Amino acid sequence: MAEPIVTLDEIRKILRELPGPDLDAASAVATRESQLTKPPGALGRLEEISSWLATWQGRARPRVDHPRVAVFAGNHGVAALGVSAFPAAVTQQMVQNFINGGAAINQLCQTFDADLRVYEMALETPTSDFTQGPAMDEEEAGRSLAYGMMAVEPGLDVLCLGEMGIANTTSASALACALFGGDAATWAGPGTGVGGEQLKRKTEVIAAGVERHKDAKDPLDILARLGGFELAAITGAVIAARRARTPVVLDGFACTVAASVLHRIDPRLLDHCIVSHVSAEPGHRKLLQEIGKSALFDFGMRLGEASGAALALGVLKAAVACHTGMATFAEAGVSGKS
Amino acid sequence: MAEPIVTLDEIRKILRELPGPDLDAASAVATRESQLTKPPGALGRLEEISSWLATWQGRARPRVDHPRVAVFAGNHGVAALGVSAFPAAVTQQMVQNFINGGAAINQLCQTFDADLRVYEMALETPTSDFTQGPAMDEEEAGRSLAYGMMAVEPGLDVLCLGEMGIANTTSASALACALFGGDAATWAGPGTGVGGEQLKRKTEVIAAGVERHKDAKDPLDILARLGGFELAAITGAVIAARRARTPVVLDGFACTVAASVLHRIDPRLLDHCIVSHVSAEPGHRKLLQEIGKSALFDFGMRLGEASGAALALGVLKAAVACHTGMATFAEAGVSGKS
Repeated sequence: MAEPIVTLDEIRKILRELPGPDLDAASAVATRESQLTKPPGALGRLEEISSWLATWQGRARPRVDHPRVAVFAGNHGVAALGVSAFPAAVTQQMVQNFINGGAAINQLCQTFDADLRVYEMALETPTSDFTQGPAMDEEEAGRSLAYGMMAVEPGLDVLCLGEMGIANTTSASALACALFGGDAATWAGPGTGVGGEQLKRKTEVIAAGVERHKDAKDPLDILARLGGFELAAITGAVIAARRARTPVVLDGFACTVAASVLHRIDPRLLDHCIVSHVSAEPGHRKLLQEIGKSALFDFGMRLGEASGAALALGVLKAAVACHTGMATFAEAGVSGKS
Repeated sequence: MAEPIVTLDEIRKILRELPGPDLDAASAVATRESQLTKPPGALGRLEEISSWLATWQGRARPRVDHPRVAVFAGNHGVAALGVSAFPAAVTQQMVQNFINGGAAINQLCQTFDADLRVYEMALETPTSDFTQGPAMDEEEAGRSLAYGMMAVEPGLDVLCLGEMGIANTTSASALACALFGGDAATWAGPGTGVGGEQLKRKTEVIAAGVERHKDAKDPLDILARLGGFELAAITGAVIAARRARTPVVLDGFACTVAASVLHRIDPRLLDHCIVSHVSAEPGHRKLLQEIGKSALFDFGMRLGEASGAALALGVLKAAVACHTGMATFAEAGVSGKS
């Protein structure tokens, strides 16, 4: 085992020292919101978004001028067990598609003027098969967490997270099952499109992994044993974003599971995150109930690669534009409630 | 009564001659969609939107390059009955706010690069009090419909519709009640923020209007008797958009009620329309069930002025960007399902 970049114990320590909400910023937003030319509360969720962005950016006037979309790609040992509709080679091929600009996420980033970063995580070396032992050792898990943390840089207004990794809904389902309990079958889903016997096989793999690692000592240990490089990177990015006062937009099932590792440590650790959409992957709806988050969209999407998170940027930009650009009743000479 | 610009009988005739879907365009979209680098159906609702846009634009490659947002403003005789939380003068003041760029809709149009047009409809002359007689005579209704039709011009890719009019949820609720049945109370809601005794009064006004005009001969006659200038204009804009092959995005309760007049004539007349959001105004959810439409957003918005419809432009642009910009499996050298 190589010298670790960061140990899981160091991560545990970081988690105890993360900043909380900026209540002054939240208060400033509420004051301004009440003066804008509309009935109180009439912009609904858009008003909540402005408040949330200000609270976690730590400034009275929220901004979405510099959004980043970070997509982490990793390969999984369990892919060899035939749990996916696509061959493992597709992870690398899709990374090339991201680089060439041909994937959905490229078009979405262009639509919403977001900076796209693709993080390729040792694709030639998948994680270990978690039915046989831990997917990652501590050094690998720590390195993946640290790698994800690098996606957070100064000057970002919002960080959208997503993943690409053939077989990673198997890993994410095992992780969710170990974190939140319940039968493997309630967390298993079609992923990129498996059904019938193949879905049964996938469910067995999930159950075997959860059973094998039932003695994991805490959520970070569960992440190392059942997760993947790209999933641990997402966990790391969520942590680093909290430290840097960068609000986070989560994508679908695999991405939200990775973030939920932190929820199991302390639910407040996800207060700087919103969930963009509820995926067609059935475990996602169940997971959102577990973590108490309400998604912005329910569009039956199930692509991953941060596609739902990037789509949410339009809503975030609209919310901030309304909050910062609207006239007040006094400025516009509009009468208030009679 | 002045010489009518267009009679309701002429409108009835137009409705029988409107174009249907372009099935060739829909087929071309489906073929291309199946070749794009993602699991089939993985973009969910975004794929449906691309198909819908192509079908009603009548072209194989849908576009959202030139969206227009049309906001119609009108005043209502029933405002004098104390059914709104805001004085009737606010309609004119908000129109000025639109012109000055200070309203929510201005910020949303800027965010999504949409052309905003505000149509001020004789604000100094409200409709008649519909508890005493018809809100509009046939000439006024025909003129309002024709006025709304003018919002549709060649070259528009999408038309987002919305309204501004103090007391117009009272008119819209009466219209919905007369069109779809049920108690006035099930269609009455807080609008800009009435409750208690004032909501009771509003409900009585709605019930009185519906009772008084129960002998209306058809949905267009109901529109004239219980609607408003801005609501009839929306109905007209929906008709003209169908003729011009311009897909329509509807906004909240009042806007959707105005469009639903056509649904009661023939449900297919709204096939070129989607509903952007389900409003906090409780009648909207019920109305969407009646017309069989599923909104994109459920954000608790209740502002009107096309705010939800404009917000949907981000999703429409994203859908089209994915459909037209993504690489195919062949182009990207990505393996298909194994």
